[in-house]
Amino acid sequence: MKLLHHPERKDILLSSVLYALSDPVRLQIVAQIHRGGEQACKSFEVPIAKSTLSQHVRTLREAGITHTRIYGTQRLLSLRSEDLNERFPGLLDAVLRSYGESREEIELRQEYEKQGS
Amino acid sequence: MKLLHHPERKDILLSSVLYALSDPVRLQIVAQIHRGGEQACKSFEVPIAKSTLSQHVRTLREAGITHTRIYGTQRLLSLRSEDLNERFPGLLDAVLRSYGESREEIELRQEYEKQGS
Repeated sequence: MKLLHHPERKDILLSSVLYALSDPVRLQIVAQIHRGGEQACKSFEVPIAKSTLSQHVRTLREAGITHTRIYGTQRLLSLRSEDLNERFPGLLDAVLRSYGESREEIELRQEYEKQGS
Repeated sequence: MKLLHHPERKDILLSSVLYALSDPVRLQIVAQIHRGGEQACKSFEVPIAKSTLSQHVRTLREAGITHTRIYGTQRLLSLRSEDLNERFPGLLDAVLRSYGESREEIELRQEYEKQGS
């Protein structure tokens, strides 16, 4: 089985976390996992190609934001909330709260719905 | 006098703010302004060339994080704390707190001192 690298808690860097969160698609993925718990990549409501999604998922994992679990042919993603809160207290909550209130999520949803119609 | 563009509060985007903060040098600049208030670019304790610093300063201004005021030959930078707190409550504080406690600032300082010695 392919082993995926996840950085240890102490090696999670603030600049990498902020970079990983600085993309509307990745923010949307993180917000969706935060709302619904561990879920498969295919459940993410983002208007992008599968290969692009894989890149985003990788960026999140390598920054230490998400944990990817391989289950059969699926990749299940969960948030490393405990690691992040221990390392950078309040940061993830502040980002998710800001994201929920910003227009960026709404715009991404509209784009998604337009593509799906 | 050259006019510098600053985005209006409503146009400050979360993803742009997080991107601008995702670089150790820019984090250091923001932390230094947060500690000492408005100050000139030349006062920033960062181990980089002047042209690179100008790029970082521009990225911070265009993201809506800092305000640049031209005073004679100097450029004075201040934090747009009120705009950021209104737009994304708690975000800047969480980032600065995380930064102060992370190793990244220390590493940057060491590099700076090594270059200066």
